[in-house]
Amino acid sequence: MKTEKIQIFDTTLRDGEQVPGCKLDKQQKLTIAQKLDELGVDVIEAGFPISSPGDFEAVQAITKVVNKATVCALTRANKKDIECAAQALEFANQPRIHTGIGTSESHIKYKFNTTQEDILNRAAEAVAYAKKYVDDVEFYAEDAGRTDNAFLARVCETVIQAGATVINIPDTTGYCLPSDYGSKIQYLKQHVKGIDNIVLSCHCHNDLGMATANAISGVVHGARQIECTINGIGERAGNTALEEVVMILKQHQELGFHTDINTILLNEVSQLTSSTMGMFVQPNKAIVGANAFAHSSGIHQDGVIKRRDTYEIIDPREVGITESAIVLTARSGRAALAYRFKNIGFDVTKNELDLLYQYFLQVADVKKEVSENDLHAIMHTFSQNKRISQTV
Amino acid sequence: MKTEKIQIFDTTLRDGEQVPGCKLDKQQKLTIAQKLDELGVDVIEAGFPISSPGDFEAVQAITKVVNKATVCALTRANKKDIECAAQALEFANQPRIHTGIGTSESHIKYKFNTTQEDILNRAAEAVAYAKKYVDDVEFYAEDAGRTDNAFLARVCETVIQAGATVINIPDTTGYCLPSDYGSKIQYLKQHVKGIDNIVLSCHCHNDLGMATANAISGVVHGARQIECTINGIGERAGNTALEEVVMILKQHQELGFHTDINTILLNEVSQLTSSTMGMFVQPNKAIVGANAFAHSSGIHQDGVIKRRDTYEIIDPREVGITESAIVLTARSGRAALAYRFKNIGFDVTKNELDLLYQYFLQVADVKKEVSENDLHAIMHTFSQNKRISQTV
Repeated sequence: MKTEKIQIFDTTLRDGEQVPGCKLDKQQKLTIAQKLDELGVDVIEAGFPISSPGDFEAVQAITKVVNKATVCALTRANKKDIECAAQALEFANQPRIHTGIGTSESHIKYKFNTTQEDILNRAAEAVAYAKKYVDDVEFYAEDAGRTDNAFLARVCETVIQAGATVINIPDTTGYCLPSDYGSKIQYLKQHVKGIDNIVLSCHCHNDLGMATANAISGVVHGARQIECTINGIGERAGNTALEEVVMILKQHQELGFHTDINTILLNEVSQLTSSTMGMFVQPNKAIVGANAFAHSSGIHQDGVIKRRDTYEIIDPREVGITESAIVLTARSGRAALAYRFKNIGFDVTKNELDLLYQYFLQVADVKKEVSENDLHAIMHTFSQNKRISQTV
Repeated sequence: MKTEKIQIFDTTLRDGEQVPGCKLDKQQKLTIAQKLDELGVDVIEAGFPISSPGDFEAVQAITKVVNKATVCALTRANKKDIECAAQALEFANQPRIHTGIGTSESHIKYKFNTTQEDILNRAAEAVAYAKKYVDDVEFYAEDAGRTDNAFLARVCETVIQAGATVINIPDTTGYCLPSDYGSKIQYLKQHVKGIDNIVLSCHCHNDLGMATANAISGVVHGARQIECTINGIGERAGNTALEEVVMILKQHQELGFHTDINTILLNEVSQLTSSTMGMFVQPNKAIVGANAFAHSSGIHQDGVIKRRDTYEIIDPREVGITESAIVLTARSGRAALAYRFKNIGFDVTKNELDLLYQYFLQVADVKKEVSENDLHAIMHTFSQNKRISQTV
């Protein structure tokens, strides 16, 4: 089946790096940027050059080491920011300037204390100014998630006329439901003149835990770029997680999309980002958490041992994990115990297993997890009464 | 506006506790159960009594301390499991037996090696048998997410006739998109005789990062119970996070639903669960992550100072975050360090603190701010040499 390409715009080094405790030095940023390029992201948002001399230098350095991806720099809608970004991107093979302004009533009224007309003018001016420096200009309509659709459509038409190639529709506060976010994208696809000549981009925040679902809903309704970060890091509760949207599009072929991400590198990039930033990934994190492919309940373990796909939709090898773990706890059943004994070289009969399982439960009731060492100890106790054949 | 009640079914102590490393002792389970009762959950799934003598005892003990909530116990679709669960629930004010069987092609064929007709029979028998012991019987159609809708409707009709009061539609492998899961619930509401006399329940897994969005979609399309866990813990990538669905329903009043959760306790229950299980919550976790309400970029801080709702949709006090964080930098002293360690569950002695403070200074010298993540990392390094007691 022919599928449509979804661009992956990684903002780990911009929206991710601005988080408390995540600050990186230039060398760390270069290491991650190179790895993202190898991973196959289409765009690397490298930083916000006007924010500090260090950030400017890092963006500039990143443009020199990235081979395939577009390198993007963030600005506000003013000349000084844009000039600074353009200078930082001077050596990029494929530079993109990402400029924009708040468009919701809350932002216009309380942050800018101005009018809708003034916002339209500033947006158009910023895009036109960025166009003097680069061909590829992305515009963000900040707080689009809470912006009235009719006004948002006017914003889009205005920036398309000014030369924008990509329009980012951020759910800045992470407020949207997937159905709302999808409807917003659909509304723009249906009501904005020239919308088919540009790429609509999803930029979702995770304040209510739906950043991933929102981005997917956006794509289903017409967006063709997803802005995301490794491990879903980012401001507050974070952004859409790259690994999640990539694997959703891969698993749900019926949607008719693909990305150019080499998924086998996902686990490695996740660990690199986590360790470099000192930003832990919780064990129950989708795709890249330590437990994402670990089965512990007896019912699940039994199923997985019989046939992997009874409980597992993704082969862990697809994301660079070599084996799904069968973890032994008090909830594990006989099948899991036999499987783990076999892995350490003991082929037990059904009768032996029944006895061993009783020893096992005694240990499991007092320990969180029964380790390989414990298994050896259980077998040792058991063997004092009965000899058992070892396979290896 | 009159809103409809959504039942919150908490399975932290069953689907959550079965996770590698999350095993609790009886007293810890009792503490959490009492806190869940205070939080206002409608149902506490207390365990899977047949799985081990320890679990049986814990379920029984929980029934004696819970005042308001229904206490539920899990079984497979067989008499022995059901008898055991009934016995464990003997002293409950409002007992519920949760029984069920796999209904997807994959489960029927590879896990049970049987036919659809046999599954229907076993389902009906199990429900009828459980009904002998309790009035309130919930049936789970395991792997419903991948079960053909027409067959799933037959399963539902069969168990309704057998006396089920609640039917759980689990997306066991976490495969569904929100639109698919919602359609499935809608299909059942439209095609199953007697469906309006029972409660449909959402039980979603987070393998693709969409467990929360799926549960909300289920409710929008007719379900009236959500199965969830504190911090979204659970098998593999976990379950729907209680705090997320509760706050979505609260923030999105236009959906017309409410829960009886006292949201002001959410942060406390999250921390209790996390520290008791030793299952840390990543900083970018929605609602309860350490950074969920932290603003770091200059742009955001500027906006929030001007008016909170430019970047924040939830007032942190609504979820029980009342005090400003004690921020750790290279200028912080031992008292601040001890305070922050205590907050994440480590009660350190004076001697331990002296050693930990040296590690802390090394980190603080290279980082702007020392985060909760860093504290976990520091404690990890430290614990490799010396064991330390955890407070709860």
